[in-house]
Amino acid sequence: MPKIAVLPGDGIGQEIIPQAVRVLKAVLAETDAEFEFQDYPIGGAAIELVGKALPDETLQGCREADAVLLGAVGGHQWDHLPASERPETAALLGLRKGLNFYANIRPVRMIPSLLATSTLKENVLDGVDMVVIRELTGGVYFGEKGRSDNPRSAYDKMTYSEEEIRRILIQGFETAMLRSKKLCSVDKANVLETSRLWREIANELAKEYPEVELTHMYVDNAAMQLVRNPKQFDVIVTENMFGDILTDLASMLGGSIGMLSSASLSGTQGMYEPAHGSAPDIAGKNLANPLATILSAALMLRYSFGMEAEALRIESAVEKVLEQGYRTGDLAQAGDKVVGTIEMGDAVLAAL
Amino acid sequence: MPKIAVLPGDGIGQEIIPQAVRVLKAVLAETDAEFEFQDYPIGGAAIELVGKALPDETLQGCREADAVLLGAVGGHQWDHLPASERPETAALLGLRKGLNFYANIRPVRMIPSLLATSTLKENVLDGVDMVVIRELTGGVYFGEKGRSDNPRSAYDKMTYSEEEIRRILIQGFETAMLRSKKLCSVDKANVLETSRLWREIANELAKEYPEVELTHMYVDNAAMQLVRNPKQFDVIVTENMFGDILTDLASMLGGSIGMLSSASLSGTQGMYEPAHGSAPDIAGKNLANPLATILSAALMLRYSFGMEAEALRIESAVEKVLEQGYRTGDLAQAGDKVVGTIEMGDAVLAAL
Ligand SMILES: CC(C)[C@H](C(=O)O)[C@@H](O)C(=O)O
Ligand SMILES: CC(C)[C@H](C(=O)O)[C@@H](O)C(=O)O
Repeated sequence: MPKIAVLPGDGIGQEIIPQAVRVLKAVLAETDAEFEFQDYPIGGAAIELVGKALPDETLQGCREADAVLLGAVGGHQWDHLPASERPETAALLGLRKGLNFYANIRPVRMIPSLLATSTLKENVLDGVDMVVIRELTGGVYFGEKGRSDNPRSAYDKMTYSEEEIRRILIQGFETAMLRSKKLCSVDKANVLETSRLWREIANELAKEYPEVELTHMYVDNAAMQLVRNPKQFDVIVTENMFGDILTDLASMLGGSIGMLSSASLSGTQGMYEPAHGSAPDIAGKNLANPLATILSAALMLRYSFGMEAEALRIESAVEKVLEQGYRTGDLAQAGDKVVGTIEMGDAVLAAL
Repeated sequence: MPKIAVLPGDGIGQEIIPQAVRVLKAVLAETDAEFEFQDYPIGGAAIELVGKALPDETLQGCREADAVLLGAVGGHQWDHLPASERPETAALLGLRKGLNFYANIRPVRMIPSLLATSTLKENVLDGVDMVVIRELTGGVYFGEKGRSDNPRSAYDKMTYSEEEIRRILIQGFETAMLRSKKLCSVDKANVLETSRLWREIANELAKEYPEVELTHMYVDNAAMQLVRNPKQFDVIVTENMFGDILTDLASMLGGSIGMLSSASLSGTQGMYEPAHGSAPDIAGKNLANPLATILSAALMLRYSFGMEAEALRIESAVEKVLEQGYRTGDLAQAGDKVVGTIEMGDAVLAAL
């Protein structure tokens, strides 16, 4: 029986995960598939419980699972910890590296009924439909870092091996093959040696994918173009730090970060989580938007279990409730039906 | 007599610089000040002339000048060069490091008559008025970099010393003191050691500027917030690479990258240039927008020569021509008076 490790985490993670699990179970109930769901502690909740943001038991549970469903981690209670030991950093980076989730995939699609919510003009956003692929286990995130004293100085090393670059670019090319065969590789090859290697390998791989039109764009320009004319993009692939920045930025093109789902793949396993954080300010109040988590559950069915029809069922249900005017507070405009986290879950279930 | 080194460079640089020089001369003619203008080759033009993107004569001329006015560098003719030797990289990084222009200042202000041009909704942009301060001579731009073979790998080292961080943060605090006393320092302290040192020093300096309200924001969130709610920002200060990305992004908040001016300061000298590139596709056609360069000339009067009244005169003239409906092609909407580069210069002169 396929196993799903469920990691609610902190803050609104505790509220959005149950909604996604409900939706998953409802969809699975109508298939022959039987899944085992097992909860594990992570983040601040795990620090309180066992003194570690990523307990061994959790890491082990995730290793043995077929897929991981993650809520959100972190909160102001742990602000006193050194930044690198805070729950979000320790838990997320530990999970990514520990399970080798090197390919982070974030689909950004403008749902027409959210156009009014966005800060970009409707004609700029209408029709936006792209995938941003971020390398997740290399670069400056995991390079050597250090500090000197008297006078103080610090360094972080951005490193990439051929192998690390190849496998994420292949993910980019393969994704492009399934879509409109346009791949935009984002780097800073005019400044970085890692980017020059990246670009070299991208150009080599392009020969193996003659149908894909590969373009290169500098990261500064990409940030601008995402706002200037987002519809020019179909599949974007980039390294870890640039991807961190560009995916958060791109979330604004899907209406709100509250809508952005993500899949992190290792080749054998997948981890699925909303792109937003634990939002401590609204936690415990039934105010959080569960849609990015529900959409992440759809990605799980698609990428980890090949259940495309079921994934689409969830995605259509989400579109339908938005069309019906249901909104959590983060997306609400005058005239909308403002609902809480649980009620939004109810609405999606009803719309399945 | 104060000396201004004028570096038109490539592409539209050759067209926009003459307009800025005309405007400068017109404003200076009505004061007692006499300035010497001296042209120097840079970029691709200099490669053709003397085989080097940044000739020694140019660097020396800039050293002896009080201020440098730079157009734009680069073009497709030099695409065959390795990325690090292309005119824009070699010339710009060489000038910045060679003359120690460590503080890059880019004011982003939404001019009301450009609201229609922007891709963001008018209520989101109306009233945007911020300054982005970017560290320009440190970080991953100038750290050690290298390559190995078999298998290939590459690295770039991001380094910052206490001194480098202090002086740019002081620029941030001082700028905040002259404005609304709000400073947002952008870093990635949850991942980078350089950012942790940055944040530490920012917090120390905050004690010397008790009137300034210092906040910290992660760069991924900052990219999103610039699009979600740009009016929350007044002064942003950040390191080199993050600044590269965020300033290009922020240019969209001023209507267009064609409006974004910049000043790069060393403490004793200043270099002034538009944030946009050499736009080879429209070069030589009298189509380029000279306003960012003209606004950069205004920054020169303000920062290098303390001529605040004259700077404001230029800035008001630019606002006036935009209000009158004059637009170069990049900004044009139905109903605007579309003019060429020279005619836009004429209009600004007339509006002075
Ligand atoms: C919490 C942080 C370490 C993380 C990152 O930078 O990758 C987050 O911003 C993300 O994008 O998942
Ligand atoms: C041309 C390039 C090296 C430069 C940079 O990255 O600094 C440019 O993008 C800029 O912002 O002036």
